[in-house]
Amino acid sequence: MSDASPLIGVLGGMGPLATVDFMHKIIAECAAGRDQDHVPVLAWNVPQIPDRQHALAGTGASPVAALQAGVRVLEAAGATRIVIPCNTAHHWFDVLQAGSAVPFIHIVDATLRYLREPGSERIGILATRGTLAARLYQQRLAAAGIGWVINTDDELDTLFTPGCYAVKRQALEEGGHLLARAGEHLLARGATRLILACTEVAVALAAIASPLLAISLDSNQALARECVAYWQSVRPGSCRMGRA
Amino acid sequence: MSDASPLIGVLGGMGPLATVDFMHKIIAECAAGRDQDHVPVLAWNVPQIPDRQHALAGTGASPVAALQAGVRVLEAAGATRIVIPCNTAHHWFDVLQAGSAVPFIHIVDATLRYLREPGSERIGILATRGTLAARLYQQRLAAAGIGWVINTDDELDTLFTPGCYAVKRQALEEGGHLLARAGEHLLARGATRLILACTEVAVALAAIASPLLAISLDSNQALARECVAYWQSVRPGSCRMGRA
Repeated sequence: MSDASPLIGVLGGMGPLATVDFMHKIIAECAAGRDQDHVPVLAWNVPQIPDRQHALAGTGASPVAALQAGVRVLEAAGATRIVIPCNTAHHWFDVLQAGSAVPFIHIVDATLRYLREPGSERIGILATRGTLAARLYQQRLAAAGIGWVINTDDELDTLFTPGCYAVKRQALEEGGHLLARAGEHLLARGATRLILACTEVAVALAAIASPLLAISLDSNQALARECVAYWQSVRPGSCRMGRA
Repeated sequence: MSDASPLIGVLGGMGPLATVDFMHKIIAECAAGRDQDHVPVLAWNVPQIPDRQHALAGTGASPVAALQAGVRVLEAAGATRIVIPCNTAHHWFDVLQAGSAVPFIHIVDATLRYLREPGSERIGILATRGTLAARLYQQRLAAAGIGWVINTDDELDTLFTPGCYAVKRQALEEGGHLLARAGEHLLARGATRLILACTEVAVALAAIASPLLAISLDSNQALARECVAYWQSVRPGSCRMGRA
């Protein structure tokens, strides 16, 4: 677990496409000249994890045991940092971190680091009901004095949640249109910027080339940048931050 | 290592983008309705492996120790099949398979399974000098009575090899144009179909939307399909083969 052999452990599979999108963003954010300068990653992309949204709604089994099994695999392989490219699963971040000696990087902390001039913005949080109920983003935004808006229960039921599950069955365009409409409701209520606080959203909006992407902060990309920053800190000169 | 807990182990990082492309193709080839029905994958995407092309040219260290270290990680995590989304690395396939009790799936076997009516086609093999020198594809094609053509030394030096390394530094369009020109030389010499026998090629040709893709057999996609077929064989009903 020494930084002499850095290794990013990815606790993935939630969903599998969001994990692959995250891995792609790690590569895209690391302007390296050769294979050997890219970030070393071990990705546990095992989607047989009980559904997180159902667990938080009280209608399904807990994913904790499966997530802990994934953490054990990453630890045993020598991961020096562990990341979870799924916002909803961060409901269990503290219990997973408490059970591991490997430092985890929190996706919400990574994302909010990219909010510049926070006072001037009103954030629309595009997230699952579980992420919203856990107040993962709202608490941190409130602490920073930043205003936010979220989708109503009705918008979650008719737009966000079906959009998210459309991505999981690879109906990316259908998901993109539903999620874009959820985002437009947030703009209509005063949001000046969106946080894509669910890692399925960016792939779906990209599939329809949504103009919302221009005013969005992508949590998956922010987490990828944190991984690249860590890699640069332990291997200076390996790659530059930013797109090649 | 029982099929009761199937897990595809990916010995990746050669290059990292080809591995992510491969993981994306596993998802794309598995028409699943929910996260839990997708193929479970553990991907060792650790690109700090000595350069395979340099090793085969006698100008660099052997990658074998690094590859064996990756195999150990996948084995320890319970991989039930191991795949290598890099054709050149298959030069060391036999030594890696001999050192492991986990069955490996060979990318060349996976690819050639998709050649239909083989007698009617003449195959252009787009591959690294190392893959060509190991005759990974030529031997199997000759055994099946299928004709083939390959790039000349000059074409490898000026088109294929620089195209491949362009992909590794994420200059995808530059790589795509070089690799497409290498492919066009094969067509000019009578090839009726191309095998993308290097996993960097498909991502590069896709980046320039090359018309060559329509007559190409992508080794990365073929290997992904074999992984999906394995998953379906041990978990019938999990997903249908083919795009969603």
